[in-house]
Amino acid sequence: MQQHLLEHIKAIPLFDKSTPDLLGRLAQKSREIEMHKGQLLFVKGEAAESFYLVTRGWVKLFRETIEGTQAIVDILPQGHVFGETSIFEDDAYPYSAEATEPSCVIAMPLSLLKQEIDANVQFARSMLSAMARYRRQQEQEFEHLTLQNAQQRIGCFLLRLARQSEQGPTEIKLPYDKTLVASRLGMQPETFSRALTKLKQTTGIEVKGSTIYMDDIAQLANYSCNICSSEFPCKDIGGKIVSKS
Amino acid sequence: MQQHLLEHIKAIPLFDKSTPDLLGRLAQKSREIEMHKGQLLFVKGEAAESFYLVTRGWVKLFRETIEGTQAIVDILPQGHVFGETSIFEDDAYPYSAEATEPSCVIAMPLSLLKQEIDANVQFARSMLSAMARYRRQQEQEFEHLTLQNAQQRIGCFLLRLARQSEQGPTEIKLPYDKTLVASRLGMQPETFSRALTKLKQTTGIEVKGSTIYMDDIAQLANYSCNICSSEFPCKDIGGKIVSKS
Repeated sequence: MQQHLLEHIKAIPLFDKSTPDLLGRLAQKSREIEMHKGQLLFVKGEAAESFYLVTRGWVKLFRETIEGTQAIVDILPQGHVFGETSIFEDDAYPYSAEATEPSCVIAMPLSLLKQEIDANVQFARSMLSAMARYRRQQEQEFEHLTLQNAQQRIGCFLLRLARQSEQGPTEIKLPYDKTLVASRLGMQPETFSRALTKLKQTTGIEVKGSTIYMDDIAQLANYSCNICSSEFPCKDIGGKIVSKS
Repeated sequence: MQQHLLEHIKAIPLFDKSTPDLLGRLAQKSREIEMHKGQLLFVKGEAAESFYLVTRGWVKLFRETIEGTQAIVDILPQGHVFGETSIFEDDAYPYSAEATEPSCVIAMPLSLLKQEIDANVQFARSMLSAMARYRRQQEQEFEHLTLQNAQQRIGCFLLRLARQSEQGPTEIKLPYDKTLVASRLGMQPETFSRALTKLKQTTGIEVKGSTIYMDDIAQLANYSCNICSSEFPCKDIGGKIVSKS
């Protein structure tokens, strides 16, 4: 059981240069949580004791304004970590987290992360690098909001979910609820729908339910990446983003 | 001369908990650079040896797409640091930097930052906290793009430049070239102009040239901060942002 968790934890880019000892301790103290659709994992401001890895499904991170409007911070597929920055936010979660479909996460103690930062300079640097990469990705997204059209932004979102180094036919899984992707990209659901249809026509990608098929991701990259200041494959995307399940 | 630089360096939030020893070494190895309007400090991809503090004027950080369009990453007033994340980007600047009006910056060696991260866990943690704060601020801006109208976003931008803890009459300096602020906020210049006029009517702020006057920043906060998931004063803004000169 814990061995199975260890395999997942090992694959987290943040732990690329970590010792087997740390990975072992994390796995030993971790637990798997099965979540049903709509299940809240934690709410913003709650005391944070764990950080999480998505191993199946999709987890939505969000905040609410005083007026009650929901703002989507991110929607995360398999392989993504969340909640880890709570240790720099007075140990409170900086957003709420909810499963948007049946999902599975691994909970790991934040205390181990903290100890490792204090005890291991190499790990502190890994964490800084991961945050710099995330920062660059956020800057990129902000840039895209002002420079790219809706189709190109959807194209970029799909590319971020794909294995960019892979050649040949590829499939990418989206959340079942596409209005979530629309929110994540700052679009109205109707805009998203129309833009996805246009993107299919322009690039030849196929959409079946919540899965996107293409002969080669160059189809998308040629279309989206010219209007971007980054290179392709995206330097600002952390190593092992996995979208296939 | 170096004493004068030391005063500026001491006020950088990142160095809040740093030893006088580090601050002294930074000041000793630092130099002041006077920049004319339009002067390039470095270009994206260039080998990075220094990080910088703005002490006067405004510095624009930007990238260019393959097609040659310029994307504004940020425009920074006095008190802000840039270039420091290069140490997590293979020692290359992740953007270009240019003075948008006569400006002054202090250049400090990145090698000292690196050494300090490796030698001092407390400093590594400070840097992680600063990056977490920046991350949260970026998330907030992204949220605002989807939830706030143009006036509210300008209001929020002004609030970020103000001393939020101050009561009573306040003034805020903007760059002379307002099209920069428009770009920074992802707006067309005409949209920015119209929205600023409406913001004046709604909140009673006064605009004279590149300076904004108001009786109390609550005027702006009441208008902008209801459509935001953060609290006022903004928790996600680092301590000592200084806008008055």
